[in-house]
Amino acid sequence: MGGPELETLIAQFARLPGLGPRSARRIVLKLLCERETKLLPLAEALSRAAAAVRSCSVCGNLDTQDPCAICTDTARERRICVVESVADLWALERARIYHGLYHVLGGTLSAIVGRGPDDLAISPLLARLEHGRWDEIILALPATVDGAATAHYLMERLKPFGVAVSRLAQGVPMGGALEVLDEGTLATALRARS
Amino acid sequence: MGGPELETLIAQFARLPGLGPRSARRIVLKLLCERETKLLPLAEALSRAAAAVRSCSVCGNLDTQDPCAICTDTARERRICVVESVADLWALERARIYHGLYHVLGGTLSAIVGRGPDDLAISPLLARLEHGRWDEIILALPATVDGAATAHYLMERLKPFGVAVSRLAQGVPMGGALEVLDEGTLATALRARS
Repeated sequence: MGGPELETLIAQFARLPGLGPRSARRIVLKLLCERETKLLPLAEALSRAAAAVRSCSVCGNLDTQDPCAICTDTARERRICVVESVADLWALERARIYHGLYHVLGGTLSAIVGRGPDDLAISPLLARLEHGRWDEIILALPATVDGAATAHYLMERLKPFGVAVSRLAQGVPMGGALEVLDEGTLATALRARS
Repeated sequence: MGGPELETLIAQFARLPGLGPRSARRIVLKLLCERETKLLPLAEALSRAAAAVRSCSVCGNLDTQDPCAICTDTARERRICVVESVADLWALERARIYHGLYHVLGGTLSAIVGRGPDDLAISPLLARLEHGRWDEIILALPATVDGAATAHYLMERLKPFGVAVSRLAQGVPMGGALEVLDEGTLATALRARS
């Protein structure tokens, strides 16, 4: 309906995370009904971001400058927080409780997907350790089987450098009602009680 | 984080229906991580649609041709289904049970928003009735107070034309469990029982 240009646009939106055909159609209709204030600014913002944003060659963050604003911030502590994705990096920055540097792996080891150490940014991480002095490496990987396997693998690879390696605590999340938590989280929280 | 281009892009997405800051950030990250397969095609599809899609001068539908594909379809029955928005028109087309033409009002009468008859495409609708022969006018307006007021107003304006005017049935929706329905729907369904 509405010609191939419309169908293509709806299909493009429907492929974005959290969206489907219905929500994509709703968004496209809104955009077309408010062409001047919504559609054209969005098209322009997309083109600008596509032209300006790149991966930081040091840590893997996305920014308009390379190295990124975090890597070039000399006030940052000499710690590296290893994360799976840029999304996780941004989440930690929003929490405003960490003032060190980052390293984006670009995924976790996964036997099912067939993703090995060479598919992740592990060599660049080891290179950063070789060429600098660091107070701590924090493994902030997801609390999944793949995340735990990746953390375990990294611990082994980091041992030779003699740097302190830590991991995020696991337990009951803030505001978490015990009755809705899974058994794994409850068991971890009980074992790590303090 | 990530420079002004990124912030602008996230803000643009966050203004779309059904999206907020969190989902917008997630979408933008996905787009930037898959620049070639997601970001650039979306930017291109937006520009193409902006250039190609316009409002049908007859019925108000959005299409790449004017009059739209529905208005120019000579196999369509000589009925006009009056809808509030293009979204409603598309919803009816998806149902594939109506084979007539449409007329998009662009809203409903609303005392609260201060939208009167002159703010809706009512004059063009009356002009279509004057200059053609029609088997039926179907008022497919939302089952809200404003929708009912608009339907009532249109019935009065359509009377002089002597054309058959009908309205969508109201009642229990398909698959609707009675216990979760509001009292208004239950009362309407009970009164209109057959």
